[in-house]
Amino acid sequence: MSCLVVKSGGRRGFADVSAELSRVRPDLEVVAWDDAALDPARVDYAFVWSPEPGGLARFSNLKVIFSSAAGVDHITRDPDWPRHVPIVRMGAADTARQMCDFVLWAALSLLRDARRYAVQQSEARWNRPGDPARMAHETRVGIMGLGNLGADVSRHLAHAGFAVSGWSRTAKQIDGVTCHAGPEGLEQFLPTCDILVCLLPDTEHTRGLIDGALLRRLRAPAGFINVGRGPQVVEADLLAALDDGTIGGAVLDVFCEEPLPSNSPFWSHPKVMVTPHIASEASFTARAAYVGALIDRFEAGDTDLPLRYDADAGY
Amino acid sequence: MSCLVVKSGGRRGFADVSAELSRVRPDLEVVAWDDAALDPARVDYAFVWSPEPGGLARFSNLKVIFSSAAGVDHITRDPDWPRHVPIVRMGAADTARQMCDFVLWAALSLLRDARRYAVQQSEARWNRPGDPARMAHETRVGIMGLGNLGADVSRHLAHAGFAVSGWSRTAKQIDGVTCHAGPEGLEQFLPTCDILVCLLPDTEHTRGLIDGALLRRLRAPAGFINVGRGPQVVEADLLAALDDGTIGGAVLDVFCEEPLPSNSPFWSHPKVMVTPHIASEASFTARAAYVGALIDRFEAGDTDLPLRYDADAGY
Repeated sequence: MSCLVVKSGGRRGFADVSAELSRVRPDLEVVAWDDAALDPARVDYAFVWSPEPGGLARFSNLKVIFSSAAGVDHITRDPDWPRHVPIVRMGAADTARQMCDFVLWAALSLLRDARRYAVQQSEARWNRPGDPARMAHETRVGIMGLGNLGADVSRHLAHAGFAVSGWSRTAKQIDGVTCHAGPEGLEQFLPTCDILVCLLPDTEHTRGLIDGALLRRLRAPAGFINVGRGPQVVEADLLAALDDGTIGGAVLDVFCEEPLPSNSPFWSHPKVMVTPHIASEASFTARAAYVGALIDRFEAGDTDLPLRYDADAGY
Repeated sequence: MSCLVVKSGGRRGFADVSAELSRVRPDLEVVAWDDAALDPARVDYAFVWSPEPGGLARFSNLKVIFSSAAGVDHITRDPDWPRHVPIVRMGAADTARQMCDFVLWAALSLLRDARRYAVQQSEARWNRPGDPARMAHETRVGIMGLGNLGADVSRHLAHAGFAVSGWSRTAKQIDGVTCHAGPEGLEQFLPTCDILVCLLPDTEHTRGLIDGALLRRLRAPAGFINVGRGPQVVEADLLAALDDGTIGGAVLDVFCEEPLPSNSPFWSHPKVMVTPHIASEASFTARAAYVGALIDRFEAGDTDLPLRYDADAGY
């Protein structure tokens, strides 16, 4: 009997994962990360969010690490993570669907000045703008990062009427989306964007990539949406760009420090909407079903699992 | 030379309308409603928002009244409006596009608990929910009113991944949308809706239509979006439904009294997003271009203009 250890979603996440896997994979033993009776040598698979450093290295027979999220930075920041074990990123369909809904909401919130109306509502103030709102069909959204999530999000925004461009490290082709790649591609891409969406993975190449110089290349006053990871943005530069009008509004779901400290200037900024890292939260049932299906494939001899972490690319 | 009188958008609206019409219809005289030099007998056409009672009756040779909005209630509430003159409702493409963007934003705001996060932001509070957000593809939005705007909005929401139903007085067919009609159709329609959108015109038949009994027939806790007119909703019933959980959240753009009084309980309600009647505001340039094209048609002998007010239907 194979054994999966789970560290994601706390007690309730464990209950949902156990329930789903006992339904679809009754022959798989599912054990909680902090179960005192856990025998580390018996663990074949781990399904984790942000395991404590050294935790994964205990499992001498570990075969696959399943990330509970689309990113893997919460695993690879452990200096002792077992580098001989493949990491598989979360690819449950709901993870992409949730991200599609969220980014579309965020882009429309920027078009329709939702932050302004939220502030006015808090003051019981009825104030109508002089200008009609910008419309989706006259707005170009640029997606940085065209992986599993970015490709779906870019198609989704195009269906909802936006003009959509995308940028990625390596060249991609997506129907209805103008794709750019590499450093020269970035130079072409940025000046076309009315709204920039960061959906990049957290790697040494993306950390600090979104700085003042990059933001000034957008079509001012641009919108900015961060649903990637906080450290990709130089937060002081973003604040300066908001204050000098380079950026007209932002929706931020991720931050350098999470939870966002209560004294962060983002909380009260009149042009910023803050959400608490909730852009894409698939149910634990959906994530467990996805992991269960991949364990089936792996045990049937297919070790070439999708969305594997590539150490050279950094994601 | 024909003459168009304009009362919409104040001084700036008049400037934009004049500029556009002098470009596309240089032979048309465009005069402001409050111009002291205006000769009422010379006016052929009126382009109006909420003309003061008796104002339109001054124009003895008036041929067509163009409403500046999709609704006409702001004209027909004048007891002396000239009933022998056709009223043409606003059908500029941007009016529908703006409404599509707004309703999609409102529906996604309900899915993603935007009001909750706005309140948390105002308190600098980072709090993540226990449950994943509901997704568009598992949510049915019901549109009441499938006229010019409602048909476009229902198609737009379907493109963005929602399941969509619609209800109208008379039967309609719209690709990808489950259409219901009439009183029996309403009974079938309501229990299928996770989110109800009111896009009805203001008529004697629709006033007070959305009351506690109707709201209780939705799939609780339902979302509610009002972009029709305020008087269609019994506001006390809506508040009660929000408080007893029948309605889980609402986005309200129109109200019985506008501007919404500062003591209205909607302003501070934790489940309500208030916007100041801005769902669909096409530019005056776009509206003037639309009116100019219809005047061309009318003067070429086509008096069967689209979107004419029907007194029997009330819109």
